[in-house]
Amino acid sequence: MFRGGQTLLTVIAVSRSGAVDLRILNSVVKNNICTASVMADKFKLPERYGAGEKSVWVEYIQLASEYKPKVNLGQGFPDYHAPDHVTKNLAEITTGDNPLLNQYTRGFGHPRLVESLSKLYSPLVGRQINPQNEILVTSGAYEALYSAILGHVDTSDEVIVIEPFFDCYEFMIKCAGGTPRFIPLKPKPSECGTQTSAQWVLDPEELKSLFNSRTKMIILNTPHNPVGKVFTMEELEMIADLCKKFNVLCVSDEVYEWMVYAPKKHIRIATLPDMWDRTITIGSAGKTFSVTGWKTGWAYGPEALMRNLQVVHQNCVYTCSTPIQEAIARSLEFEISRRDSPDCYLTALARELLPKRDFLVKSLTENGFLPYVPEGGYFIVADWTKLGGKIDLSKESDRHADYRFTKKFAKEAGVLTIPPSAFYSEQNKCLGENFARFCFIKKDENLALADKLMKEWNAKQ
Amino acid sequence: MFRGGQTLLTVIAVSRSGAVDLRILNSVVKNNICTASVMADKFKLPERYGAGEKSVWVEYIQLASEYKPKVNLGQGFPDYHAPDHVTKNLAEITTGDNPLLNQYTRGFGHPRLVESLSKLYSPLVGRQINPQNEILVTSGAYEALYSAILGHVDTSDEVIVIEPFFDCYEFMIKCAGGTPRFIPLKPKPSECGTQTSAQWVLDPEELKSLFNSRTKMIILNTPHNPVGKVFTMEELEMIADLCKKFNVLCVSDEVYEWMVYAPKKHIRIATLPDMWDRTITIGSAGKTFSVTGWKTGWAYGPEALMRNLQVVHQNCVYTCSTPIQEAIARSLEFEISRRDSPDCYLTALARELLPKRDFLVKSLTENGFLPYVPEGGYFIVADWTKLGGKIDLSKESDRHADYRFTKKFAKEAGVLTIPPSAFYSEQNKCLGENFARFCFIKKDENLALADKLMKEWNAKQ
Repeated sequence: MFRGGQTLLTVIAVSRSGAVDLRILNSVVKNNICTASVMADKFKLPERYGAGEKSVWVEYIQLASEYKPKVNLGQGFPDYHAPDHVTKNLAEITTGDNPLLNQYTRGFGHPRLVESLSKLYSPLVGRQINPQNEILVTSGAYEALYSAILGHVDTSDEVIVIEPFFDCYEFMIKCAGGTPRFIPLKPKPSECGTQTSAQWVLDPEELKSLFNSRTKMIILNTPHNPVGKVFTMEELEMIADLCKKFNVLCVSDEVYEWMVYAPKKHIRIATLPDMWDRTITIGSAGKTFSVTGWKTGWAYGPEALMRNLQVVHQNCVYTCSTPIQEAIARSLEFEISRRDSPDCYLTALARELLPKRDFLVKSLTENGFLPYVPEGGYFIVADWTKLGGKIDLSKESDRHADYRFTKKFAKEAGVLTIPPSAFYSEQNKCLGENFARFCFIKKDENLALADKLMKEWNAKQ
Repeated sequence: MFRGGQTLLTVIAVSRSGAVDLRILNSVVKNNICTASVMADKFKLPERYGAGEKSVWVEYIQLASEYKPKVNLGQGFPDYHAPDHVTKNLAEITTGDNPLLNQYTRGFGHPRLVESLSKLYSPLVGRQINPQNEILVTSGAYEALYSAILGHVDTSDEVIVIEPFFDCYEFMIKCAGGTPRFIPLKPKPSECGTQTSAQWVLDPEELKSLFNSRTKMIILNTPHNPVGKVFTMEELEMIADLCKKFNVLCVSDEVYEWMVYAPKKHIRIATLPDMWDRTITIGSAGKTFSVTGWKTGWAYGPEALMRNLQVVHQNCVYTCSTPIQEAIARSLEFEISRRDSPDCYLTALARELLPKRDFLVKSLTENGFLPYVPEGGYFIVADWTKLGGKIDLSKESDRHADYRFTKKFAKEAGVLTIPPSAFYSEQNKCLGENFARFCFIKKDENLALADKLMKEWNAKQ
């Protein structure tokens, strides 16, 4: 079986395993006859995953467990109780009379949940959403994004991504074989003294220049993480017009849809003329009901586009948790029944968050940051560079200044935040370096503690 | 911008959308200027998903909702209550004092759950499993399979799949760009009169012939769905030896690990000599605790192989439900604490299922089927062809006889079962056509009802 000159290799291979296999032999030679290396070589990560991207979340959760900062304003989740009726629903369902509510349910979404989502969104998008084929329930909005991107992006497709962006977008696009084309929101100077997220804008000409015949998709995120920007009608019209002109699909990540601060209003791009047919909108029960750990999200849109998402979902997760879906369905039904009451959690949430936002904006300003007041979401992006003169970042080894700053700030001030350059493409990371991201969906006492810690730290500089 | 002869096309395109884009123009021409077709053409499913495979589950759940058979012995889940302590744990956690148990947890697995999984499995595999990097918690065992297959299979890799197989294996392999190589278990004649799942065996020579330098992985499923076979030490040694000889990874789907009927014993292939380093083992909380709707599973194996799974998981789902993971962790801790007691659910479950299995085997035999008594799992595969002469399948239009039989049986007898040809590759579907799959993890009264319905139906033929 072997050509001349391979006698020695044959002996090695046969003595090791009894196998006679050229691929093994080649690996053996390349790796100096080391079993571990032979295995590692064969079982390396498939190329579609790149190098297995480093995640800012893994790194900063590790930082938190190592340095134990006193306040965690990093990851976006509440540190207080979810609404009572929501968690009570789950408790009653799992221990209740119907054992089937702990067993598999319909793969594309538990019947009662897709029904209630249709009831919730149909009036908001001005058309009857078919619960059977226009809604998909997913393992968090994260899996909805994955299904939308992997279900539509093919090799050589381009996807327009607005920076800063939720970091998974880029990885998912590349994993589908697509090419992300980035365009940053850039803060224009303030006209009135106060800085707000509305100052972060797209350059219309730059946006237009990214659309071409290879463009398959644009990913929109409104209200925006981390900037807190709520896209205006004019901005959405500009995006919609380009989508229609170039036959492009819009994936609209609207997980912060209920956290919009008056007078701003959330506008669903799917409601713009002729946009329903080319929009997939993504929502989240975790964000809506302050239960991020329930990992339930959804996508809705026209059947023809949703079919692709169903195929991906059926391939990777197949079906989501039944008791959690039933609990969310019941909770939505309850909120829909009190939709016009001020107690409705869908409106109460923003009211509850507003003083927290304002407290943290004030505290950041007093402590030498330049925060952009967010119009939506529960994050504040604040410029830390005025503090730069006071602090020595030379002992931090990270490449990007915001990583160096946030790490030092976590260790010294005891306040954990997230470096926004993680939300930029490699070529634009410098645009995020002057900022830190603060999450304000936290107990008042923890926001007060953050304020106190920042004041103490400032006094020491 | 356009070359000569394109004037008309330019007019069409500009009047439709204001866009001037060659790709749109081409689509317009191809699709006779129909917007829907232009969109459909561009937004078709990426090739990696094939045609978006038809799922037997979607089809048979649809059948169930249409014909409302009186007993559902189709999908594999219990129709009775899960252990009290398990569901009580979830209820207490979600409504309890710690609000963080409703929020995001560690992506690769909730700390308390990976700790308890390490405690459970370390003694069973005879080595200390590192909870930090040798265990991944997933959105059901389904997502564990997805992460294992997508994380390791690359374009042009071959994966050996034993037929019949859980239908998602094939789709996942193809989606990763790999090529499945199938080998069927074939029932050999019974030596003692009773038919058992042990009669379903692999041909050693045929298995050997499938291994070559392109073989990346073999997927093993023991106890086996749908046959109920529990692989013997000799069979596992044969597989292990080939894996070592050809440097092949074994993905061992062991979700039915606790449902093995004495004197049979479940053997983990990871415990065979030198197999830990090349095995990823998959388990399921849904199967273990009779809560399939909780959609929580896991994979464990050596860090070097698990890293690939982590990357896929981080890409598609990122993290799993916190309250459900905490509930499973507490439930496992409780079962570990009473591991030697007969009440331990991990051993009680098989004891509870045994009379159900025996009842259904007897009933099937009395009603003209030839069941293979399963040594594990909660399915029975039974040959229905002795009944063939009595029934007229000509009105059913499906290609495969088992689809025709199970549909007619559901409609006329009122008993829903699953056609096993769904678990075979295209070329081997004929091997499943003589059988139907019955699930027996059902209330005694429902098994009795199935018996009654089959007797009535038989009397009418």
